[in-house]
Amino acid sequence: MLLLNRAVVPGLRQACRLKSTPLRLCIQACSTDDSFRPHRPDSTFSGDSSSTGGWRVMGTLLGLGAVLAYHDHWCRAAQDSKPRIYTKEEVSSHKSQKTGIWVTLGSEVFDVTEFVDLHPGGPSKLMLAAGGPLEPFWSLYAFHNQPHVRELLAQYKIGELSPEESVPPTLEIADPFADDPVRHPALKVNSQRPFNAEPPPELLTENYITPNPIFFTRNHMPVPNVDPDTYCLHVVGPPGGQSLSLSLDDLYKFPKHEITVTLQCAGNRRSDMNKVKEVKGLEWRTGAISTARWAGARLCDVLVQAGYQLGETEAHVCFEGLDSDPTGTTYGASIPLARAMDPEAEVLLAYEMNGQPLPRDHGFPVRVVVPGVVGARNVKWLGKVSVEPEESYSHWQQRDYKGFSPSVDWDTVDFDSAPSIQELPVQSAITEPQDGDTIQSGEVTVKGYAWSGGGRAVIRVDVSLDGGLTWHTAELEGEKQPPRKAWAWRLWHLQAPVPAGQKELNIVCKAVDDSYNVQPDTVAPIWNLRGVLSNAWHRIRVHVTQ
Amino acid sequence: MLLLNRAVVPGLRQACRLKSTPLRLCIQACSTDDSFRPHRPDSTFSGDSSSTGGWRVMGTLLGLGAVLAYHDHWCRAAQDSKPRIYTKEEVSSHKSQKTGIWVTLGSEVFDVTEFVDLHPGGPSKLMLAAGGPLEPFWSLYAFHNQPHVRELLAQYKIGELSPEESVPPTLEIADPFADDPVRHPALKVNSQRPFNAEPPPELLTENYITPNPIFFTRNHMPVPNVDPDTYCLHVVGPPGGQSLSLSLDDLYKFPKHEITVTLQCAGNRRSDMNKVKEVKGLEWRTGAISTARWAGARLCDVLVQAGYQLGETEAHVCFEGLDSDPTGTTYGASIPLARAMDPEAEVLLAYEMNGQPLPRDHGFPVRVVVPGVVGARNVKWLGKVSVEPEESYSHWQQRDYKGFSPSVDWDTVDFDSAPSIQELPVQSAITEPQDGDTIQSGEVTVKGYAWSGGGRAVIRVDVSLDGGLTWHTAELEGEKQPPRKAWAWRLWHLQAPVPAGQKELNIVCKAVDDSYNVQPDTVAPIWNLRGVLSNAWHRIRVHVTQ
Repeated sequence: MLLLNRAVVPGLRQACRLKSTPLRLCIQACSTDDSFRPHRPDSTFSGDSSSTGGWRVMGTLLGLGAVLAYHDHWCRAAQDSKPRIYTKEEVSSHKSQKTGIWVTLGSEVFDVTEFVDLHPGGPSKLMLAAGGPLEPFWSLYAFHNQPHVRELLAQYKIGELSPEESVPPTLEIADPFADDPVRHPALKVNSQRPFNAEPPPELLTENYITPNPIFFTRNHMPVPNVDPDTYCLHVVGPPGGQSLSLSLDDLYKFPKHEITVTLQCAGNRRSDMNKVKEVKGLEWRTGAISTARWAGARLCDVLVQAGYQLGETEAHVCFEGLDSDPTGTTYGASIPLARAMDPEAEVLLAYEMNGQPLPRDHGFPVRVVVPGVVGARNVKWLGKVSVEPEESYSHWQQRDYKGFSPSVDWDTVDFDSAPSIQELPVQSAITEPQDGDTIQSGEVTVKGYAWSGGGRAVIRVDVSLDGGLTWHTAELEGEKQPPRKAWAWRLWHLQAPVPAGQKELNIVCKAVDDSYNVQPDTVAPIWNLRGVLSNAWHRIRVHVTQ
Repeated sequence: MLLLNRAVVPGLRQACRLKSTPLRLCIQACSTDDSFRPHRPDSTFSGDSSSTGGWRVMGTLLGLGAVLAYHDHWCRAAQDSKPRIYTKEEVSSHKSQKTGIWVTLGSEVFDVTEFVDLHPGGPSKLMLAAGGPLEPFWSLYAFHNQPHVRELLAQYKIGELSPEESVPPTLEIADPFADDPVRHPALKVNSQRPFNAEPPPELLTENYITPNPIFFTRNHMPVPNVDPDTYCLHVVGPPGGQSLSLSLDDLYKFPKHEITVTLQCAGNRRSDMNKVKEVKGLEWRTGAISTARWAGARLCDVLVQAGYQLGETEAHVCFEGLDSDPTGTTYGASIPLARAMDPEAEVLLAYEMNGQPLPRDHGFPVRVVVPGVVGARNVKWLGKVSVEPEESYSHWQQRDYKGFSPSVDWDTVDFDSAPSIQELPVQSAITEPQDGDTIQSGEVTVKGYAWSGGGRAVIRVDVSLDGGLTWHTAELEGEKQPPRKAWAWRLWHLQAPVPAGQKELNIVCKAVDDSYNVQPDTVAPIWNLRGVLSNAWHRIRVHVTQ
């Protein structure tokens, strides 16, 4: 019943190549590790720090790794107590599957041939370092500097560089994140490089409009430093038409449109999904959602000026960011042309956020704001707009931000089988009290937010104090939004008596939108390998002092 | 802790008026009846047979009724063993709250003063019979002819008509349902008058297009017999504009538009909700949904010809049917003008169903078809179209077909607090095998349908054979529909091995739409007093022969 695949076999083969000993023992050791789950190597990396989750997945391999490394070590010790010595030239001649793929870290040499396909960031990224030192790349992707990554690497060690060659690599790599802006200390940081952070629950719903400094930040790469004076948005024209190059001043000349829009990351509340079974991605809690008043030119006005009109056949508006990784890959995403061209959909090329120029972390000087649609399509630091017959070919459109059945894992996932996430499902969360808090008996005040995608208004939030057996209807705050354009969340609160004698409350919230869609009761049946679309009832437990 | 309200108090008062005896006993008897739930008297009736459910609600009053009737009887027996005799003239002088409200049935006289407000069909309908015989009205609303209704009435008996006057009422009422069409015998009838019926599961998903004779039928009143030669659709013009009177030939002159659309009743799968706690409404199983190819004029083309355009302020297109109850109340409903005017929403004034003129049960000669929207807005036998600043004032728009929290009952419901159902949430059901079936071991084939409102496509159906612990992905049949216009269902099937040794399978299905909305796990948290929007996972149990 042991799951034997290429994550296991080559390692075992390598271990047993040295001495034909306890293969059976290794297999048994591995098979007792229930958390063992191989990582599928077809997702490309491009600096997406969400793959820190991938490192975690790999961490589960360490049970195996430790066994193999120990066995390897034991075999070696029997064979040869001195490490083999290689020259840099020898290392540099190993950069293909044919010759084997070697890398160095400090003075150590590693044969990572068998690991390349298992690299969470995809094989191509690791191949950039083939035949040479890892340091220049680890300085870009700083999360590699963790003990479990080094441990993992250790099992691939084949020797050392000759002492006279073992000097730090001379290539000086400037830290690409060095120029990132200074952030607000209240933010809960999920990843420093690239920067990903969320406001704490107690601040999140303090204001209907989230103050810019604590608006959740989801960066995939270093923050580009764009000069507003030379900024130019390239809008590719239709076939036979003219392309536009729009400066900021050009954009200001379009009618200024201002709307209140909530943005939510597809991974919001991933932490709840992670509790059910490990997923790949940043550990967002309830704060990967925020609301701002955005102002800018309507995308439809710009597209019309570029000569576009809505045709019979489906087309997509592709956006490219000015943020990029060391290979030059820029962030990209797309939305259907029908949405882009619909004035009622109010898609913006926004240059203002809450009355200020966009902060750098939120796309200065121009970002896309697609009301009612997942954060990932709201491309920041917008550099280029084009209209294509297919969706953006970007990794984030085609190979990420999609939902799958709980039965799909990294071995069976077929990214082409699911549509890219656009409109998000109905969502809600409790921000006060917080899980584990102690409250006074008497009366409890419960607060939170609720939102739905596609402009669907939240019409009701139900709150339970007994785990979902009985329900109270929460009070929705703020004003109703225009029909079909409920782009922003509703904050809500409930004041209710704490049932007498109760020592613990199991508080739950669930929202209903105006298509009467509801949130699912539990997480497991919507679990998916990427940990997106986590919108089951939000549940917290609090203690009651008598 | 006894819930004392006007359903209880007057009855007790009446009982105790006769002899001041065991009031405490009565109260105790009532308070042990957990199912006791008074009916709130503010919903009007208008021949909606869904109120057979209302009678059921009232049936729960019978525990109380029996106590009261027994007590009443006991008191009377002590006072007077002979019934009091009244003349018709005496009865006819009792038709107001001031004089008391009396009615007769056969030779018996009843004082229903205290009951009028409790009448499930609303006070106004019962008041039509005040001071006279019930028979003419019961012949219209045939479901009154049931033992528990007669039992309920019995407790209000105050005497008998004088024998010489006790002849059947001379008023001959023609049976308004006599002219209803002949129906297909395969239909499972939920109510004969008005006719409400669904195809059996084994036929429902036999074809992607439901054959006209077994398309589910939801009538609120007798089927009007409309002469196509004199048929005229009245379209009220905008202020200062001209109204249109359109014959069938006039409608044929508009561009003919043909689309495949699934219609679903808001009460589909109400039977599942009823199992959790009793609801008011027809006992629809999984068949209050069907799919047809509809053809007709686009509503937007007709409205444009009438001089309408989309304005800044929200408006509603109100539809009136030619079906009516004895008081002249016609069926009515409305949709937002924005939907009606949007060519992409493809709202039709349909005159063809699967290539045939509409069958009489489905609105001959013209009905509204609103793709993606609850059946109740797809008004049949369309007589009148107008554009109003408010939604239709019809009972079915304002006081029915809305969703509420599970905590709302008929005493606390505020119909103004919830929006009328328009787009429906994602739905799916298993049609093969059926609950309680016995299947062979080896392999099982599971079939069913899935659909979502608002043109949102079904992107995946998950099927579990173990009650939701593990999931298979079903195969979706048929072709994808145009983006944003997935107006029709997807049929699906799954072939999967039956886990060896399993004696019973707990089969579950759940669908996901392209906004990644999912169905809730369980029924209780979406339970609502009217039993609408029943879209929790569909669950069946089958036995396995070894």
